[in-house]
Amino acid sequence: MTNPEKIYVGLDDNSYDVLVGSDLISRAGNFIAPLLRRKRIVIVTDDNVGGLYLNPLSAALTSNGVSVEAITLPAGEQTKSFSQLEQLCDNLVELKVERNDLIVALGGGVIGDITGFAASILRRGCRFVQIPTTLLAQVDSSVGGKTAINVRGGKNLIGAFHQPVLVLADTDVLASLPPRELRAGYAEVVKYGLLGDATFFEWLEENGPALLSGDPVLMSHAVQRSITAKSRIVEADEKETGQRALLNLGHTFGHAFEAEMGYSQKLLHGEAVALGMVMAFDYSVTKGLCNADHAVRVKTHLEDVGLPVTPYEIDGFNASAAELMTHIWQDKKVSAGKLTFILAREIGEAFIANDVDADHIENFLETALQA
Amino acid sequence: MTNPEKIYVGLDDNSYDVLVGSDLISRAGNFIAPLLRRKRIVIVTDDNVGGLYLNPLSAALTSNGVSVEAITLPAGEQTKSFSQLEQLCDNLVELKVERNDLIVALGGGVIGDITGFAASILRRGCRFVQIPTTLLAQVDSSVGGKTAINVRGGKNLIGAFHQPVLVLADTDVLASLPPRELRAGYAEVVKYGLLGDATFFEWLEENGPALLSGDPVLMSHAVQRSITAKSRIVEADEKETGQRALLNLGHTFGHAFEAEMGYSQKLLHGEAVALGMVMAFDYSVTKGLCNADHAVRVKTHLEDVGLPVTPYEIDGFNASAAELMTHIWQDKKVSAGKLTFILAREIGEAFIANDVDADHIENFLETALQA
Repeated sequence: MTNPEKIYVGLDDNSYDVLVGSDLISRAGNFIAPLLRRKRIVIVTDDNVGGLYLNPLSAALTSNGVSVEAITLPAGEQTKSFSQLEQLCDNLVELKVERNDLIVALGGGVIGDITGFAASILRRGCRFVQIPTTLLAQVDSSVGGKTAINVRGGKNLIGAFHQPVLVLADTDVLASLPPRELRAGYAEVVKYGLLGDATFFEWLEENGPALLSGDPVLMSHAVQRSITAKSRIVEADEKETGQRALLNLGHTFGHAFEAEMGYSQKLLHGEAVALGMVMAFDYSVTKGLCNADHAVRVKTHLEDVGLPVTPYEIDGFNASAAELMTHIWQDKKVSAGKLTFILAREIGEAFIANDVDADHIENFLETALQA
Repeated sequence: MTNPEKIYVGLDDNSYDVLVGSDLISRAGNFIAPLLRRKRIVIVTDDNVGGLYLNPLSAALTSNGVSVEAITLPAGEQTKSFSQLEQLCDNLVELKVERNDLIVALGGGVIGDITGFAASILRRGCRFVQIPTTLLAQVDSSVGGKTAINVRGGKNLIGAFHQPVLVLADTDVLASLPPRELRAGYAEVVKYGLLGDATFFEWLEENGPALLSGDPVLMSHAVQRSITAKSRIVEADEKETGQRALLNLGHTFGHAFEAEMGYSQKLLHGEAVALGMVMAFDYSVTKGLCNADHAVRVKTHLEDVGLPVTPYEIDGFNASAAELMTHIWQDKKVSAGKLTFILAREIGEAFIANDVDADHIENFLETALQA
């Protein structure tokens, strides 16, 4: 077995390694045991992922002499709720998890987000490890320390910045993902090219289709490059007071559509981001900030790999621009009543626009919905 | 009106002032308005405190051109729950509170703890101001950034370190406190003398009774000195990785009794701390760490001012040493199965004992319960 690639996320006292490679779950004991103050661990997973990877992960830990307890939550976005958080916290207290113990999040973004948040608030902060099992979680949510749950008023509005002490991105697990979910995660990979690395986007234009067909070498390269890009941004701005907001490229538009569809299977997060990135480039073109050729290339590539690039591709979507605006106003990045969007000058050069006029956005959305 | 005393809490990016003095609520607009990015504020209070101080505080803010919204929670420890936290977060989201807005906690420890925690997790961190209205909250919980709620398994087990941006300790409000509540808060004042300032303890031996009878000058001095002591400790160890644990003098014993009494009115937190400090000194004497004269002085002073110093003073208390031990094991400071207690070499010289033998504590409790 080959050594995993190691990406170091340098955040002073909160620094950690992200390991990317094959067979990481079956070797997890080797990577995790050295971090333990006492030989016990609690794994939090969901009833889908648990069926696939809880046994191999537990076996890998117990073979290193670590005793394992598991908590299994229902799969799906509904789990990111206050009631599930309370139950999870109660369970962790019952298991007498201490500040220096390790909690492992084994799953996709939902499990990583709620487990990381629970770890952050249990005894005012316990350590945790991310073992992301979707492409989206590997290249985005498992790295950078954003944790959250949803409330009635919106998604991810309640949470904490809490960095994991280790991330194990086992690229073998991606082979078992449904193609649609893999494509949705791929949208976040494309994002790293679009926001800061035109060469990577060119590489994706060339290799994206083969990667999505299951080429493990191409996939592993894309995961590493994505995590490296994210790590550098997070290192420069852990709490998102500045440049980290670039990672929201496509997200403000995207969230509005997700919210409108009730965060359902009708529009996956990555699909919303794909559509949102197309819109961010189109809006940038409209404002004379970006050459139209770039917006066309973005749209063409996302369309080529089967991601939605127009609202009418969303099954059952039927909302007005005004309705989408109500979601946009609830964005965490709203400040003093002004809208923040990530816009682009060209592929590989996104920037933060803090003072976007809401009327312009609404007009743009009206036009986009008529197209 | 005189200028308030200003105590600076230096915590790099999280630094803030604590203002101590008279008429601070009626002048709150002057202190708070300069901190606002936009002229609006949400006050969180409870249905007791709100009746007394919400109107004057709102008036002080609106006269500075600040628009005010208020959220009133039920008074009492039961409010520090997940369900109240969820409702508070929902309300703050509905009021469209943004990251840079200010939330004001107006009340005692319960309101400060749940409001500070809500501020910490709303949009992954909003700013907040503490206006503590009990002696206990002024000298302890409002300063230092510990926020929390309770869960089935124990008190304050879920929370965050989240510093306020300003604390206004208006000593006028203390005149309206019930004598029992004032005495309970006084136990935390005594704590600062016992843990690190023998001169202050001597001052309290001399002035404590007059202070508790309502002398505002003595009270103001004690509040300032307590907050200064706490601030210096928090500055040295914000996240309680070391010396901050000294602030738990009397708390591990005390929590066991509080938990046993169901955190009810039968034993107030400060009363439990008084009893716990007596026990910490007695235990230190038992282990040959401290001269018995010191333990006698501690007990005598607390008794003189009407605080409980033995378990049989607790109305309805009837538990075994073994039952108390179950609460002690759930303490946040348990690490790798060892008990941590704050013990004393003498008055003014407490220290952290990380490796306390549980059997010794249980034997000590058995003896104490028979006394």
